[in-house]
Amino acid sequence: MDSLELIRGLSRPSPSKIVLLVIDGLGGLPHPKTGKTELETANTPNLDKLAAGGICGLTDPISPGITPGSTPGHLALFGYDPLKFNIGRGVVEAVGIDFDLKPGDIAARGNFCTVDKEGLITDRRAGRISTEKCAELCQLLGGLVIDGVKLSVLPVREHRFVIVFQGKGLAPNVSDSDPQRAGVAPKAVTALNPQADQMAVAANRFVEQAKAILAKHHPTNMLLLRGFSQRPKLPTMPEVYRLKPAAIAAYPMYRGLAKLVGMQVLNTGMTIAEEMATLKKNYSVYDFFFLHIKKTDSAGEDGDFERKVKIIEEADKSLPVLARLKPDVIVVTGDHSTPALLKGHSWHPLPIVLYSEWCRPDRVGDFAESACISGGLGRFPATQIMPLAMANALKLAKFGA
Amino acid sequence: MDSLELIRGLSRPSPSKIVLLVIDGLGGLPHPKTGKTELETANTPNLDKLAAGGICGLTDPISPGITPGSTPGHLALFGYDPLKFNIGRGVVEAVGIDFDLKPGDIAARGNFCTVDKEGLITDRRAGRISTEKCAELCQLLGGLVIDGVKLSVLPVREHRFVIVFQGKGLAPNVSDSDPQRAGVAPKAVTALNPQADQMAVAANRFVEQAKAILAKHHPTNMLLLRGFSQRPKLPTMPEVYRLKPAAIAAYPMYRGLAKLVGMQVLNTGMTIAEEMATLKKNYSVYDFFFLHIKKTDSAGEDGDFERKVKIIEEADKSLPVLARLKPDVIVVTGDHSTPALLKGHSWHPLPIVLYSEWCRPDRVGDFAESACISGGLGRFPATQIMPLAMANALKLAKFGA
Repeated sequence: MDSLELIRGLSRPSPSKIVLLVIDGLGGLPHPKTGKTELETANTPNLDKLAAGGICGLTDPISPGITPGSTPGHLALFGYDPLKFNIGRGVVEAVGIDFDLKPGDIAARGNFCTVDKEGLITDRRAGRISTEKCAELCQLLGGLVIDGVKLSVLPVREHRFVIVFQGKGLAPNVSDSDPQRAGVAPKAVTALNPQADQMAVAANRFVEQAKAILAKHHPTNMLLLRGFSQRPKLPTMPEVYRLKPAAIAAYPMYRGLAKLVGMQVLNTGMTIAEEMATLKKNYSVYDFFFLHIKKTDSAGEDGDFERKVKIIEEADKSLPVLARLKPDVIVVTGDHSTPALLKGHSWHPLPIVLYSEWCRPDRVGDFAESACISGGLGRFPATQIMPLAMANALKLAKFGA
Repeated sequence: MDSLELIRGLSRPSPSKIVLLVIDGLGGLPHPKTGKTELETANTPNLDKLAAGGICGLTDPISPGITPGSTPGHLALFGYDPLKFNIGRGVVEAVGIDFDLKPGDIAARGNFCTVDKEGLITDRRAGRISTEKCAELCQLLGGLVIDGVKLSVLPVREHRFVIVFQGKGLAPNVSDSDPQRAGVAPKAVTALNPQADQMAVAANRFVEQAKAILAKHHPTNMLLLRGFSQRPKLPTMPEVYRLKPAAIAAYPMYRGLAKLVGMQVLNTGMTIAEEMATLKKNYSVYDFFFLHIKKTDSAGEDGDFERKVKIIEEADKSLPVLARLKPDVIVVTGDHSTPALLKGHSWHPLPIVLYSEWCRPDRVGDFAESACISGGLGRFPATQIMPLAMANALKLAKFGA
């Protein structure tokens, strides 16, 4: 019996409420000058107060040493084994912009990019063009039909778009055209099994036509595709946990992921304060809230230690709005570490604090990587966060007689 | 997807280097007079320095409560689930002395032993005879053919030898003749399933003939066989980790095990200093080194607390040779505990320190069992050491989008 099956059998609806606050890329590495991580550097009186009253620990999204992408990182937070439920990037992006993916549809993530006269990539993101510009380009490419396959090309944000292939006999097992680096040409899409031949042909024909159309649109004179995938079969959070869950996330990908696991995605503004206001406004309607703060991760990816510190402090300042709602369970953690020193996601475990009337507090009073080592939760897989939150909300029945 | 498959998909070759220093039987128990374990008693300034700059923890070779043999202990260190990959002692010994085991060959580990007039074992190791004497006895027994089964008997070290049975229709599922204690007679080898009948018959006929030949060679007037086994199918470390791995181990068994997982086994002297010199000499050629120190375990097995302390101190003194090479990742741990107080392997978790630029150091500054409890690695299965080392060497790609 896997963990989801176990929990499904034990979950009991109740009026208690859970808030899961995900500070994306929260974990860090110590700055060489101070020996303190981003979280240890930030002034976080409210998170520290939560830690003092709650129980802390360190959590691994997948397992020690494994660096998660955003999707597996979040799946683990929602209680889904990310090695079992592997969701393609295309699907996550498509659902994130409210595209109604049908069974059999294949979605891929696209980047508008810049290539030189030899066709070699000079900028994988075409200078991060505006979302408006991206929408114009998508219109140029939309509505094509290739060998009976219908194409939809939809803008996401900046240089990012989604393409959906709809037709009979398509299979998602094809390689990316995106080589994930500059200085080389985009790759041909190739079928990874015979069932995917037709998909590879359609993808390559699309790229060919798009290249001709984009030729005069420098710096967006080419595109890159990756993460061809189909909507997966996931048991939803309402099915597994018998919750009425809502997501508050400013960025499309996280909204898409929340939708895939059966959350209601709420309209919200982009700032942390606006997200907190959305929580307050909808608090009476749902019993589980996933609140996602993105910009810590972006700052980490950019290698901007100071900016990451500031965003953590901004999150901390907004915490009282959440705390005043008095949820039965508050969990604060991240989906993965993004140390500014590494300028990318990393394998380091995440600090986590769980606050509830029934949490059995430990002695940790400082929400930080080094302090959480001594926390009462110890070090544990992130897939166990939801069972813990459910238990602390008194929503899980006893197992066995 | 199991852990090896996961890692195989994420591993990326790079110039960074990993050194895994295994101090065999490292973990201990506190001396009743001082309350300190062997490692806590030893003066280890270099290991403590490594702990201060690195991240520490406790690791379980198999799982809490399970005492590992040397083979599962090492398999776990190399990232192989020892419950999935069960390698017989005979195979490990045979490969350790460079015997080219073919598919279908059955190898067993042998001891020359002493029996009294009633045939009861008085010394399972025949007073630890010299390796030369062992070689002479093996010559007496070698070259026999029993019912079409060809036998090879080969000396290992002291009283230890390997026997290989080559012939059609042999299966390894037979019991040991070695009762693992004195005061009783050697046991008959019995088939554990019908396929192994022929193997049991051949083994018992060999023992009978050997007994007659050895009768006049007191104290080596009998032999004991155990660990009948066949060469297993293992994915190699170069396949899984895309490493170029080398082993530096003075004892045949560890050399054999390293060979089974695809390491290049380097010629080395017997002392720790000589092993370190071998590391230095070959440092530029490989990107992963398994360096094995045996004598801590032997001292523990002999119940010699003080000798174990001294060998730990010897290992500590040699550490600067390793540190001066500046590997990207240094891991120091053991394959299992061998507390002198228990005179044998035990189930106690092992202290571990991992040192790298990216390790997120904890507050532990003392490499010792009790201090490592507070380490940032927490308590974790030894199979996760390799993924952690690979991650810290920046040799693992991100999992998922």
